[in-house]
Amino acid sequence: MAQKPSIPKGTRDFSPLEVNRRNYIISTIKKHFQHFGFQPIETPSFENYDTLMGKYGEEGDRLIFKILNSGDFLKKVPDDVYQEKNSTQLTPKIVEKALRYDLTVPFARYVVQHQNELDFPFKRYQIQPVWRADRPQKGRFREFYQCDADVVGSTSLWQEVEFVQLYDAVFTSLGLKGTVIKINNRKILSGFAEVMGQPDKLIDFTVALDKLDKIGKEKVIEEMQSKGITPEAIHKLAPIFDLSGNFLEKITQLKQLLASSEVGLKGVEELAFIQKVIATMPLVTAQLDLDVTLARGLNYYTGAIFEVAAPKTVKLGSIGGGGRYDDLTGIFGLKGMSGVGISFGLDRIYLALEELDLFPKTQENATQLLFINFGEEEALYAAKALHKLREIGVNAELYPDNAKMKKQMNYANKRSIPFVVMVGTKEIAEETYTLKNMLTGTQETLKLTDLIGAVKQEVL
Amino acid sequence: MAQKPSIPKGTRDFSPLEVNRRNYIISTIKKHFQHFGFQPIETPSFENYDTLMGKYGEEGDRLIFKILNSGDFLKKVPDDVYQEKNSTQLTPKIVEKALRYDLTVPFARYVVQHQNELDFPFKRYQIQPVWRADRPQKGRFREFYQCDADVVGSTSLWQEVEFVQLYDAVFTSLGLKGTVIKINNRKILSGFAEVMGQPDKLIDFTVALDKLDKIGKEKVIEEMQSKGITPEAIHKLAPIFDLSGNFLEKITQLKQLLASSEVGLKGVEELAFIQKVIATMPLVTAQLDLDVTLARGLNYYTGAIFEVAAPKTVKLGSIGGGGRYDDLTGIFGLKGMSGVGISFGLDRIYLALEELDLFPKTQENATQLLFINFGEEEALYAAKALHKLREIGVNAELYPDNAKMKKQMNYANKRSIPFVVMVGTKEIAEETYTLKNMLTGTQETLKLTDLIGAVKQEVL
Repeated sequence: MAQKPSIPKGTRDFSPLEVNRRNYIISTIKKHFQHFGFQPIETPSFENYDTLMGKYGEEGDRLIFKILNSGDFLKKVPDDVYQEKNSTQLTPKIVEKALRYDLTVPFARYVVQHQNELDFPFKRYQIQPVWRADRPQKGRFREFYQCDADVVGSTSLWQEVEFVQLYDAVFTSLGLKGTVIKINNRKILSGFAEVMGQPDKLIDFTVALDKLDKIGKEKVIEEMQSKGITPEAIHKLAPIFDLSGNFLEKITQLKQLLASSEVGLKGVEELAFIQKVIATMPLVTAQLDLDVTLARGLNYYTGAIFEVAAPKTVKLGSIGGGGRYDDLTGIFGLKGMSGVGISFGLDRIYLALEELDLFPKTQENATQLLFINFGEEEALYAAKALHKLREIGVNAELYPDNAKMKKQMNYANKRSIPFVVMVGTKEIAEETYTLKNMLTGTQETLKLTDLIGAVKQEVL
Repeated sequence: MAQKPSIPKGTRDFSPLEVNRRNYIISTIKKHFQHFGFQPIETPSFENYDTLMGKYGEEGDRLIFKILNSGDFLKKVPDDVYQEKNSTQLTPKIVEKALRYDLTVPFARYVVQHQNELDFPFKRYQIQPVWRADRPQKGRFREFYQCDADVVGSTSLWQEVEFVQLYDAVFTSLGLKGTVIKINNRKILSGFAEVMGQPDKLIDFTVALDKLDKIGKEKVIEEMQSKGITPEAIHKLAPIFDLSGNFLEKITQLKQLLASSEVGLKGVEELAFIQKVIATMPLVTAQLDLDVTLARGLNYYTGAIFEVAAPKTVKLGSIGGGGRYDDLTGIFGLKGMSGVGISFGLDRIYLALEELDLFPKTQENATQLLFINFGEEEALYAAKALHKLREIGVNAELYPDNAKMKKQMNYANKRSIPFVVMVGTKEIAEETYTLKNMLTGTQETLKLTDLIGAVKQEVL
């Protein structure tokens, strides 16, 4: 019996409309990446097992898709290991490759491996799928694209400034008004831990603080206390739960609060620089906001931390994020290579544009004109015009079969093809073509040159 | 110790130059796919194990990369199966997904799964990577892109005509002159088997005939005889070993040779139609050639068979191929869906363009202008012009650090950035910018409006 076709859970087929819309977002992002001097690289879909394992924590290791060795993969497995029948122990014996889990580790591997061919600072972008064996749920997939831009080899804060501008440029270009670019700095978080005199509680503190938006001040404080943070420590930092005002006002409050912490003040100073520069070249549609509750993978970032919130009208949460990391490539043997990068969340941006009806109305890549097929002689006559129209860049088709007129017109309608051309014996005799506008229903009979002129005007 | 970074054998990293060149080829192919009315789809990188297995023969099954189930994958394996320690038997118990091996089977699965959403004839293109556990060797990779266009749901020969035109349009557009589009028809091969009176020897016959180019007539005949094809049978078909003349002359000879075979004559008639139509709209740089030795996966194709040979000056063999298949979707339960499709060999086309020096000289996506960084105040002043230039579409950067002038100029040179802008205290005082052409060495000091005008003229 024939198989009933399906695809693995958490994966997706993309229809022509969806591919075109995804490409619209991707090409917009790409264009701005390039305006900002980023160059594309691509890395293999699978990396060596050892390259990926141990880089994303225990949970990450579990979520990495492993590729079974080819051929007689059990041959090299020692009998004693095999007898254990233990998945965790068997895996490294039968797996040498794994699908990439993100673009950051492959990028780090790339930089180290190709360090002698690269010119630093190296600004790269990478737009490729990644795979995670996550439990599929609404909006979370097992295969999805990441769109990353990173620069390595410079500690300059100008990079942070540019990433803020880049976010603004992309979202403005997509028509997504009212995004909020939230920024924080790991040094400020470290400063908090210093000020409260419990530097060992940094993680517990930030994990709790991160929830301020969702569960409110009281619950956050409860959680902090339950983790052993003292009431006095929390009291010292009380102002951060109610930090208000604009960016500059928050900076002023933080300076006072962190006055005793050198690292904390350094973090404030960095944010102040970014704010100062951005103020001289105002963002177009985005808003820059200082958010001390922002932590995002704290163990990873060492300086700026970014996150972009979608416009409030769409309830989507974050549509981008990133930050600075001081030792990206250390794990592969190249020390002291500071980097900073951001990412765009393609799937969520798609949902936002869809919800706000911001996708372009016309699909520029779709077929613009269909020649109706009335039989071999007519088709041959039509094919010549078709050939000429394609040469000037029109997307055009000849209906392949001499099917009933109604069927052919239906095909044009269903595919939203805006123009059809009809040629029968009369047109052939007169060397003309009848062009019909499917939207207005009007039609006119034209010589080839005029047909080309008319189509050119309408669709190019 | 840090890991020495590497990638799995048979895979590749692509540098910015390589990505840009690959994208140049891909976007050219895409553009023409669209001119011909094809629409993009994308399918998941991995399919269900059962969707792929058994579709590519035993060898294919072996070359498919299997993805190990996540979690405790051994839990569900029955002890008796496990005890066998047999890779072949264990695989289906610990694997549910596999990386796609080509784009054709996923396409067939897609058509069946989405048949109610599609308008037939359905013309789709798909440009995505595929994976094969082949032994890596020069020019053969374990991850590579396929670029396919197919149309399903019509038996019209106009599709074959259009694919010939499409090949010509793409290779012309890429500047690859002198390609030969070889065409054959499975029905002609069936006709040969009928004429020689040994229809059961069709495969042996065509496998041997396929080698005519490489090993010559005598060796081919030897092989045929060794497979049990009688000397009389071979004698009857003797003319095909020396078929000569142009397309039409070959057609005439084949008509005589296949006079007694209905299916054979049908094949000749189909080729004659294609030739006739193409003759009325001559190809621009490609040549259409009838090649009766062309077989390509005989079990698969049922009508036309295509293969494109690279220009003779590059010794690369085939850079594209395809054909008609009458029952693509049958295996997934949808009968009678005739299709025809072609494929472009991205890696070989890349090699051909490289060898013939046909890639565009300028990389349109590369950085066009670098602002030298002389310190914070200067950088801030420069950033405003930078911002304006990006807004009008210039790819521009600010060197992030106040490094030595020489280092910054070196960076511009190495990255082949054609223009740099320098701003010092003098420029700030005079509200000007000094623009230097890195190729000619000339420089001029300009007001912002003039700088924008000059850059616009030079790089946009």
